[in-house]
Amino acid sequence: MSADPSTTPAVTRHVVPIDESWSVGGRPHGGYLLGSAVELALDEAHPHPMAVSAHYVSSPDHGSADVAVERVRTGRRVATSRVRLAQEGIARVEVLVSAGTWTGADPYWTSGGTPPELPPVEQCPRVPSVGPTGRKVGYFDHIDTRLDPASTQWVVGRPQGLAEVRGYMRRDDESPATPLDLLLFCDAMPPVTFDLGLMGWVPTLELTVHVRGLPAPGWLRVVQRARLLRDGWLDEECEVWDSTDRLVAQARQLAGYRLED
Amino acid sequence: MSADPSTTPAVTRHVVPIDESWSVGGRPHGGYLLGSAVELALDEAHPHPMAVSAHYVSSPDHGSADVAVERVRTGRRVATSRVRLAQEGIARVEVLVSAGTWTGADPYWTSGGTPPELPPVEQCPRVPSVGPTGRKVGYFDHIDTRLDPASTQWVVGRPQGLAEVRGYMRRDDESPATPLDLLLFCDAMPPVTFDLGLMGWVPTLELTVHVRGLPAPGWLRVVQRARLLRDGWLDEECEVWDSTDRLVAQARQLAGYRLED
Repeated sequence: MSADPSTTPAVTRHVVPIDESWSVGGRPHGGYLLGSAVELALDEAHPHPMAVSAHYVSSPDHGSADVAVERVRTGRRVATSRVRLAQEGIARVEVLVSAGTWTGADPYWTSGGTPPELPPVEQCPRVPSVGPTGRKVGYFDHIDTRLDPASTQWVVGRPQGLAEVRGYMRRDDESPATPLDLLLFCDAMPPVTFDLGLMGWVPTLELTVHVRGLPAPGWLRVVQRARLLRDGWLDEECEVWDSTDRLVAQARQLAGYRLED
Repeated sequence: MSADPSTTPAVTRHVVPIDESWSVGGRPHGGYLLGSAVELALDEAHPHPMAVSAHYVSSPDHGSADVAVERVRTGRRVATSRVRLAQEGIARVEVLVSAGTWTGADPYWTSGGTPPELPPVEQCPRVPSVGPTGRKVGYFDHIDTRLDPASTQWVVGRPQGLAEVRGYMRRDDESPATPLDLLLFCDAMPPVTFDLGLMGWVPTLELTVHVRGLPAPGWLRVVQRARLLRDGWLDEECEVWDSTDRLVAQARQLAGYRLED
């Protein structure tokens, strides 16, 4: 794609496959849909997502989707696009994407935060794509996720009441994660409501991801937490840290919870 | 406006005034623009913003703006709209809005977080709309902001290096804050980079606000913090707590910083 605003068409239209292997309980994974949509808003001069905001509008199906990308502004540092992923004319996900270029440069300043403390990866079992509920969570075949057993005691009926889940992630093919991959990793943790004993489905209403740098090769460490459940809605905050102890993505979503499954 | 999808037009167009009294250094305040745009995406059945994502595309002017609101989906609990605020055909702010209804109900669960610790409001001076730099920040005439002096030592040349600013806020007319007001309050703190000795301008690229409940009457307590400055971009995280010690808004923005003013 060209970054020259005089030649960039206002709206480009694409048909993208929605692969069933990413399914969660028979429905496409939201992070997978997001990655598929955002990829189309990148270009050579703006190859990385910087800030991505997604509102999930209706429940998607497998097969294919129509993605309309409207390049709103192409600047030197930032290109902003409005993206709609739809099926049969019905909007599924609305996305705003600001893209640019991340480097591996040293931070100018940090608040001193640190990655989540985890046992060695060998002591964290890989999450299977068919879990204890019997529901198929296909993206765990694509994202190798090793959770700290201390944060997943709900698996054996002992939720800790902390609403925190933490662990390691990498691509199943072991290739280094790209900034685009980070969008998926920020939506790949099991719902933190499981740790509160709420085993129901937690649909995302809105998810914003801020990518903060190029991830270094190696395992990423991911932690997801909630602050507040109120009026049927909770926040899920996600941080992704790379193997050099740098924060490479921050995300927060507003999602629905139900008190009965 | 009607919430009946069969009668809601796909796109409604509005002209809104952009009042110079909200200016920051001669430019309209981003939070003020956001409030003006989001208000047009609400309706009787969905009166409150829930999740609002704004990408700031180009620098706005005073006078008036054209706001196009496309209602993407009108559901029972949530209505989602895509909103563009433009001037002379040039996009200024792109917004996604999911709206619904907040109550004053008790939380189902909280992580135990608490509001920022502040001195009594009498010991926190009101921020004047013309500050030490001589730049007019008009929104401080509309939003009565009383900052904890310990977090504003940069005013007297002693930044603390913590990148945290905290204080009280209310509307200047002392009427209770609405959920819509919270969008403005989440973008009204001075840049936390001042506390790092960086006195340059900090333009917002992206701001997402999650409203979490109806604010109780009385002073709101607001804290803004950064985690990471890297590659010219920083995060600013904002929390708003009401007078009953409840978290009523969470926001994060990705903004630019410059090492030299």
